[in-house]
Amino acid sequence: MEDKLRQGFLYDFYGELLNEHQRNIYESYIIEDLSLSEIADEQGISRQGVHDLIKRCNKMLEGYEDKLHLVDKFMHIREDVKAINDLAKEATEDNLAKICSISNDILEEL
Amino acid sequence: MEDKLRQGFLYDFYGELLNEHQRNIYESYIIEDLSLSEIADEQGISRQGVHDLIKRCNKMLEGYEDKLHLVDKFMHIREDVKAINDLAKEATEDNLAKICSISNDILEEL
Repeated sequence: MEDKLRQGFLYDFYGELLNEHQRNIYESYIIEDLSLSEIADEQGISRQGVHDLIKRCNKMLEGYEDKLHLVDKFMHIREDVKAINDLAKEATEDNLAKICSISNDILEEL
Repeated sequence: MEDKLRQGFLYDFYGELLNEHQRNIYESYIIEDLSLSEIADEQGISRQGVHDLIKRCNKMLEGYEDKLHLVDKFMHIREDVKAINDLAKEATEDNLAKICSISNDILEEL
């Protein structure tokens, strides 16, 4: 997964575990897509300070994912549900059997 | 949801964020279903100590869920996938349309 996209997913899942100051700066970078210099100006801190904070946030978010694996789990379910969705558009008996099988797999995983 | 069942779900999701000592005692209580006194004997600490530790763990796990809502999200998906599974067993056109609709809802949520 591309770096900033992955960071966005991690933030979606675990962002609430950062403090408000960290969230503000991280959102400017990941969601609003501002540059480090723009964020530094906005927050009245150095560019290096912004860089370090974002690096620390990345490390914290990756740390949560290393322990909990919930982004991976959700991505996996997402792919399975996409497959179900595609199969349901073609109404054959074979596809219905596959829908049963995939949905059973998801239920076992949850 | 019944208390101990809910605690088990919370532990499944966020247990890795507790330390090893906390996990050992919490697992004895939630998964092995030992009594507070049995755990106290096993660990060589007081019954009150076990009680306090479990209460603190519950609070930590609930704190994570209050911030992240991932157990709720998974439970919701689980119900939807169960509905898909039931519908796929009865192969009508109407049911396939419902499968499409529910799976779309899940994808929007993920």
